[in-house]
Amino acid sequence: VTQPDNLLEAIRRGEPRALARAITRIENRDDSAEALLRQLFPYSGRATLLGLTGAPGAGKSTLADSLAALLRSRGQSVGIVAVDPTSPFSGGAILGDRIRMQRHHADDGVFIRSMATRGALGGLATAAADVALLLDAAGKDTVLVETVGVGQDEVDIVRLADVTVVMLVPGMGDDVQTIKAGIMEIADVFAINKADRSGADRVEQELRAMLSIGHRPDGWSVPIVKTVATDGTGVPELLDAALSYIAFLRDRGLLASKKAVNWRQRLLDLLRERLLMRAVNATGEDRLADLAGRVARREMDPYSAVDAIMQAQL
Amino acid sequence: VTQPDNLLEAIRRGEPRALARAITRIENRDDSAEALLRQLFPYSGRATLLGLTGAPGAGKSTLADSLAALLRSRGQSVGIVAVDPTSPFSGGAILGDRIRMQRHHADDGVFIRSMATRGALGGLATAAADVALLLDAAGKDTVLVETVGVGQDEVDIVRLADVTVVMLVPGMGDDVQTIKAGIMEIADVFAINKADRSGADRVEQELRAMLSIGHRPDGWSVPIVKTVATDGTGVPELLDAALSYIAFLRDRGLLASKKAVNWRQRLLDLLRERLLMRAVNATGEDRLADLAGRVARREMDPYSAVDAIMQAQL
Repeated sequence: VTQPDNLLEAIRRGEPRALARAITRIENRDDSAEALLRQLFPYSGRATLLGLTGAPGAGKSTLADSLAALLRSRGQSVGIVAVDPTSPFSGGAILGDRIRMQRHHADDGVFIRSMATRGALGGLATAAADVALLLDAAGKDTVLVETVGVGQDEVDIVRLADVTVVMLVPGMGDDVQTIKAGIMEIADVFAINKADRSGADRVEQELRAMLSIGHRPDGWSVPIVKTVATDGTGVPELLDAALSYIAFLRDRGLLASKKAVNWRQRLLDLLRERLLMRAVNATGEDRLADLAGRVARREMDPYSAVDAIMQAQL
Repeated sequence: VTQPDNLLEAIRRGEPRALARAITRIENRDDSAEALLRQLFPYSGRATLLGLTGAPGAGKSTLADSLAALLRSRGQSVGIVAVDPTSPFSGGAILGDRIRMQRHHADDGVFIRSMATRGALGGLATAAADVALLLDAAGKDTVLVETVGVGQDEVDIVRLADVTVVMLVPGMGDDVQTIKAGIMEIADVFAINKADRSGADRVEQELRAMLSIGHRPDGWSVPIVKTVATDGTGVPELLDAALSYIAFLRDRGLLASKKAVNWRQRLLDLLRERLLMRAVNATGEDRLADLAGRVARREMDPYSAVDAIMQAQL
């Protein structure tokens, strides 16, 4: 399927309506989305991919907006992909996007899109990564991917970024101790947001104590930056810390291998989705329901049911 | 692979050490785990599967322990699978299990296991479902599956239960509005925990307003129960509400079809995992890394890379 040249060109010019149309196709996982992404792929790979994650209420969207405003003031264009399955129905997400866009005064240099749902077979991580790729190919200099740092899906999403900022806030539960294991491993920079609240120093001390225990394989020492996203305090320092990690990787010749590792993960995500879709289409809904019913009645074990589906594939 | 009869028999007698050994195999996704589960499957299907989900800090483990104590007092044996990827490294999870086991005075009628990580290719939902199946086959009358209600993985996990309790607490953010869309859909019963705090009535009103909007396809009206898990207040009412949903399904002949729908989802999860594992093994790590590198260097697009892997499979 070849795209009408006008859609492809409109995307490459970063026209918001063309981007919105393309994202709808990506979310629906239809064949035209893949054809489009294949054509856009050669134009991608230029943007800086910045991942931003933290618990609900950490202030991710405010910090993302503050980073976007700073990047704009430095002459950069920005795309934001906000992945939050904890947000209400998609109507709410779209309304939220409109409110957020207004902060940027309908500036075509900033494009924001929320994603809250995933398809029946597809993964949210795959769809979010495709949207990031689209915004990259559309010429955004920086693509911010913000996600709630809780489920494994969300960890997968930020793993696709060049640099990942993990946000903490003072006074949320046991603070550092409640951060999930996977999240600690992916933090290239820590932001302690709402740092004007009491307890920020304690969070910082706990983080430093934790960071002093281990050593990262790449030799990077993870910076901790205090921010107040609502008034922009610390945001330039945070951006500089994130960019200095990318410079660190580039200087040591590690950026290419990091990107290759990220792509390996993304190929697995794509592969998982494709294989399942092919198998389900080949099996058919009737046979699947029949097998599920037999398993539920204990007439067949689930492993044999899956074997039967897989053997029919060969 | 046939299991030594003594392990199979020890599991069926519910011996904690045998259960722990089997769970380790399930977590490692080794072939012996599948052989074991195939043999255990015919003995499963007897337990009541109760899902319990809510945000971090909602008091899930306290409520699960309180429900377990109540079930024990009614002469039932209980298994608890606690899935929390936000909890610290597995050492912490195991320590937490020991502390929780002590509350039950080393009672062999209660078995608790936390799961925080997933394998490289396997899903946490699949592993948790297998552990629930094991505890069912081990003769536990009720299996409680508690999970942090945030990521999509966690939603998948509770979808496998016969009845799902969604926990809310007063004073956490915007309360009802921040509950994720997917979670609202899976709630068969709402528990407002920490109901002695101010704001519990408001949460209840908001929930009632929300529930009054829609109608469930199965015709069930979702009860709201206030609990104080720390002292057991409301816990008998909560258990009765959960059990009455199962009775409701059974009376209307809907339980079998619900179980079949759950098994359909589980077969897809298993299938996704198996297909990916087979494809990765057939492709080999070297070729996968090579393809990822070519994609990262923009020599090949990711969709063509995945096509190449899939075609090599045929």
